[in-house]
Amino acid sequence: MADFLVLVIVGSKNDLPVMNSCEEVLSELGIPYKIEVASAHRNPEKVENLVLEAESSGAEVIIAAAGMSAALPGVVAARTNLPVIGVPIDSGLPGGIDALFSIVQMPSGIPVATVAVGGARNAAILAGRILALKHPDVRQRLVDLRRRLEED
Amino acid sequence: MADFLVLVIVGSKNDLPVMNSCEEVLSELGIPYKIEVASAHRNPEKVENLVLEAESSGAEVIIAAAGMSAALPGVVAARTNLPVIGVPIDSGLPGGIDALFSIVQMPSGIPVATVAVGGARNAAILAGRILALKHPDVRQRLVDLRRRLEED
Amino acid sequence: MADFLVLVIVGSKNDLPVMNSCEEVLSELGIPYKIEVASAHRNPEKVENLVLEAESSGAEVIIAAAGMSAALPGVVAARTNLPVIGVPIDSGLPGGIDALFSIVQMPSGIPVATVAVGGARNAAILAGRILALKHPDVRQRLVDLRRRLEED
Amino acid sequence: MADFLVLVIVGSKNDLPVMNSCEEVLSELGIPYKIEVASAHRNPEKVENLVLEAESSGAEVIIAAAGMSAALPGVVAARTNLPVIGVPIDSGLPGGIDALFSIVQMPSGIPVATVAVGGARNAAILAGRILALKHPDVRQRLVDLRRRLEED
Amino acid sequence: MADFLVLVIVGSKNDLPVMNSCEEVLSELGIPYKIEVASAHRNPEKVENLVLEAESSGAEVIIAAAGMSAALPGVVAARTNLPVIGVPIDSGLPGGIDALFSIVQMPSGIPVATVAVGGARNAAILAGRILALKHPDVRQRLVDLRRRLEED
Amino acid sequence: MADFLVLVIVGSKNDLPVMNSCEEVLSELGIPYKIEVASAHRNPEKVENLVLEAESSGAEVIIAAAGMSAALPGVVAARTNLPVIGVPIDSGLPGGIDALFSIVQMPSGIPVATVAVGGARNAAILAGRILALKHPDVRQRLVDLRRRLEED
Amino acid sequence: MADFLVLVIVGSKNDLPVMNSCEEVLSELGIPYKIEVASAHRNPEKVENLVLEAESSGAEVIIAAAGMSAALPGVVAARTNLPVIGVPIDSGLPGGIDALFSIVQMPSGIPVATVAVGGARNAAILAGRILALKHPDVRQRLVDLRRRLEED
Amino acid sequence: MADFLVLVIVGSKNDLPVMNSCEEVLSELGIPYKIEVASAHRNPEKVENLVLEAESSGAEVIIAAAGMSAALPGVVAARTNLPVIGVPIDSGLPGGIDALFSIVQMPSGIPVATVAVGGARNAAILAGRILALKHPDVRQRLVDLRRRLEED
Repeated sequence: MADFLVLVIVGSKNDLPVMNSCEEVLSELGIPYKIEVASAHRNPEKVENLVLEAESSGAEVIIAAAGMSAALPGVVAARTNLPVIGVPIDSGLPGGIDALFSIVQMPSGIPVATVAVGGARNAAILAGRILALKHPDVRQRLVDLRRRLEED
Repeated sequence: MADFLVLVIVGSKNDLPVMNSCEEVLSELGIPYKIEVASAHRNPEKVENLVLEAESSGAEVIIAAAGMSAALPGVVAARTNLPVIGVPIDSGLPGGIDALFSIVQMPSGIPVATVAVGGARNAAILAGRILALKHPDVRQRLVDLRRRLEED
Repeated sequence: MADFLVLVIVGSKNDLPVMNSCEEVLSELGIPYKIEVASAHRNPEKVENLVLEAESSGAEVIIAAAGMSAALPGVVAARTNLPVIGVPIDSGLPGGIDALFSIVQMPSGIPVATVAVGGARNAAILAGRILALKHPDVRQRLVDLRRRLEED
Repeated sequence: MADFLVLVIVGSKNDLPVMNSCEEVLSELGIPYKIEVASAHRNPEKVENLVLEAESSGAEVIIAAAGMSAALPGVVAARTNLPVIGVPIDSGLPGGIDALFSIVQMPSGIPVATVAVGGARNAAILAGRILALKHPDVRQRLVDLRRRLEED
Repeated sequence: MADFLVLVIVGSKNDLPVMNSCEEVLSELGIPYKIEVASAHRNPEKVENLVLEAESSGAEVIIAAAGMSAALPGVVAARTNLPVIGVPIDSGLPGGIDALFSIVQMPSGIPVATVAVGGARNAAILAGRILALKHPDVRQRLVDLRRRLEED
Repeated sequence: MADFLVLVIVGSKNDLPVMNSCEEVLSELGIPYKIEVASAHRNPEKVENLVLEAESSGAEVIIAAAGMSAALPGVVAARTNLPVIGVPIDSGLPGGIDALFSIVQMPSGIPVATVAVGGARNAAILAGRILALKHPDVRQRLVDLRRRLEED
Repeated sequence: MADFLVLVIVGSKNDLPVMNSCEEVLSELGIPYKIEVASAHRNPEKVENLVLEAESSGAEVIIAAAGMSAALPGVVAARTNLPVIGVPIDSGLPGGIDALFSIVQMPSGIPVATVAVGGARNAAILAGRILALKHPDVRQRLVDLRRRLEED
Repeated sequence: MADFLVLVIVGSKNDLPVMNSCEEVLSELGIPYKIEVASAHRNPEKVENLVLEAESSGAEVIIAAAGMSAALPGVVAARTNLPVIGVPIDSGLPGGIDALFSIVQMPSGIPVATVAVGGARNAAILAGRILALKHPDVRQRLVDLRRRLEED
């Protein structure tokens, strides 16, 4: 198995706490991941390098979280053919509507799998659903997580 | 290989034309798919049966397209652990903003991978990115599609 | 008279406090009710069972409250011919605009009687207006409630 | 039975065509109705008289459709204890968002059962669901209508 | 001169504090006014009586403030030919956007002079500008107020 | 009487047709008016001169119509103490929402009496209501116009 | 070099704190500036004089910050051919959406270079990018600032 | 003088017609420019190369126009210290609101000078205002253009 199956990129240090629940669920699902802070606008080359490294390390899903103009998920999706999950962060216009529109309204050809504003937990579960197609152990843990969710 | 790898469910007959480009890209990527019309509100049992059948037939991704209240993608995601891609259709409030919010703002636990309003083509490409993790032939055709896109 | 005339379903434990004023008004109007927590996305089968049980118990109105994607009221309305009242809860986008659009913008054929965001009190009064057509005691208590409202 | 069970009030002559499908469904359900044009702003007294007459004639549901500022449904609901169904009409801001907010955001005490923008058909079905509680023939026709809907 | 030149109607007791600055400016401009709480939805007859009384008392401007569905200013304007100033109150959707749309989007024939959300102060100044056309003492105080404003 | 009681300023030649119904109603009410095209952004000095001239000519109300950023009504209100009526024109963002917000959200001290987007007719009627306080002939014609409106 | 290269105008004393980071960056970039409070609506002549003085003093960029109706940046741009940078301030509708639309939606002929709501820092950096074309020392400090930003 | 002072990048061939008026004004102002089609999502490397080439060719301003997610202007601004002007194109959500938010809501450190949705003409004039600081011939032509605008 690769060093990490999921690369999580967060556009700003301030957004790291929002992604705690993402990290928790990835751990719960037994999915090795790597988390990095890199901005599509302030560190475009770092973003590019993280994507290349993820691909060569065998990562299979990239989760990108960003606020405001939120170009990060789209810029990542433009540099890879891996599935990219976008998490809009509420840090500009009310409710993070700017980030939501920026992430979901991708032009034809380059999709980003967008989850709810602040949907860090769901980003991890969506990554789990994708990886479960290939990794039976993830599938089993996903079933367990789902059962706990229903009982809760 | 399964009879179909992708199940496409469309909430209303009227939305079928919007999904033409989705079908085209799935064909281009050599992904066998099945397309059905079923409404989460008018035919809830049909939706449920389609999801169960898709799972037992070995389908790996479900694409669900709906307009207005657009409960379909979420209802599908509630009945399966497969990755579900949601396509908001513009048939109610201007720009399909009602469908977009209904599909993307899923509660914690049940994610829908949302693409742009009317993003039928991107839904197929996102399905391709997911399937490419496991199906090398899809991966190759995705690379080809991407190259044509860049040249265009 | 039935065990309960109104079934109140709330999509999440977190939304229960919002529905306190709904319960108060139902009591004030002398309307027997039952309140349950069940999510259209996390517990679809529980929702279905609650609706079937309500119908067979002789309930006449269902009130469903949910936030964010808020599929609950529509999913309930899809399983019954009883009048369904939807209460959008403010727990996602600002003002609960996502829940409002999800609940009110129902497709043709399956209506949800939508009240204001957080309109728990009005949901109970609307249930009272409907039940008053058949239950004279409710009608009288509704008139009394209205008079107190005007004087207040 | 009363002369008419449902009073339909439309705020402007221009909105009459939108309500055609409402009239069709009421007829299909065998519900006697009366339709009138009266504006809460241009003919407040006519609106008041229509409501009083509906009550004394034994009408059980009032449907009110209006665009823009759309005070009509709320003004009607303020003058009666009958259940009032509001239909926002798209004639001002895009998508009828002004009418939707005006109709659904009723203050505590005076509910309006709001359906989708332009949801004339659903207004009639909602009236049918309410009347079916008391009128078995309406209940049967509602079941038939629902079956045709599912098959369509 | 009339007992009061301006009638101020507020839709709810909760909105009274918002109107403090309106009362202050009216006093500063030496404009006699009367302030009343009355809801277009909860006390439609009281509203009607207040308007009739204002007209017969010689009032020349009516200021109506309301939140949410905010029918009050329009309902007042429907009952009089006096100029009516509407003040949207922020008590429902974020920013009071529901009240703003309800008040400003009046249908053809019945205008409401709408000021900013929460614009109680400006409502009084606008009343002052209107009254100044006929009342020279108001005009002079308005000029003084304006000078203080510029210097501030 | 002054040469013109109402000055109508339109921000762009393209907006002149929208104001036709304003001119018609002013004529119907027997209110002498002058209409000019001048942009707050392209001809700030012309706007200033028009306002000064209107004041010295004895005009009593200014109507200003503009689209997009729509600074015109506010800029006019900043240069006079006459009541200023603002008409948002739909020429930028959908529904003229940009013009509506620009015109109605005036800061404390400088009110603009805002009517609906495209509310040219209501701007004239509002001017009529204001002028009727002082001009009995306008008052009579306003009553006649109102009666025709009710009958229509 | 001129006394000040950048004139910063703020529409209200309340908005001064928002502009602190603008002043800091201008200082960091070694750009002499002058900051003034003046409202397009309350002090139109002061605004005009500030613009004329800036031009005659050799200022090369004007930054204008305002909230709500936010006419200031456009009014400044109407009086000069210098590049004008507009900063929307969040003081009216949620997120400052009213100010954003008012500032960015300028009519053809008179542009305002709009930055994000509350984007005081970016306004200063944009001024720096413009001035750097002509002032090599600013260019060097801008490169340094950028490097620190990337490292941060 | 450089081969071209302004680089215009358009995100899609479909957006080229919108930029015609931008080209016309640049020509009118005597500003040499180069226009290219390149998408931040489909051709990220081409965008990067265009920016590098522009810098080394002595270009002084970059205009970037894009619709929907509209990452282009921000991605360009991330790769250069030249002033970057962003033009939102209306090709996704109504009115181009998605592109507007994506372009204007840039994070701290990387500004984009945003003009109105579809504001191609104003983008060119803003470029002219910036270049006029250094190029006296542009300044003169800008004054001429302004005069024609005022007379028009």
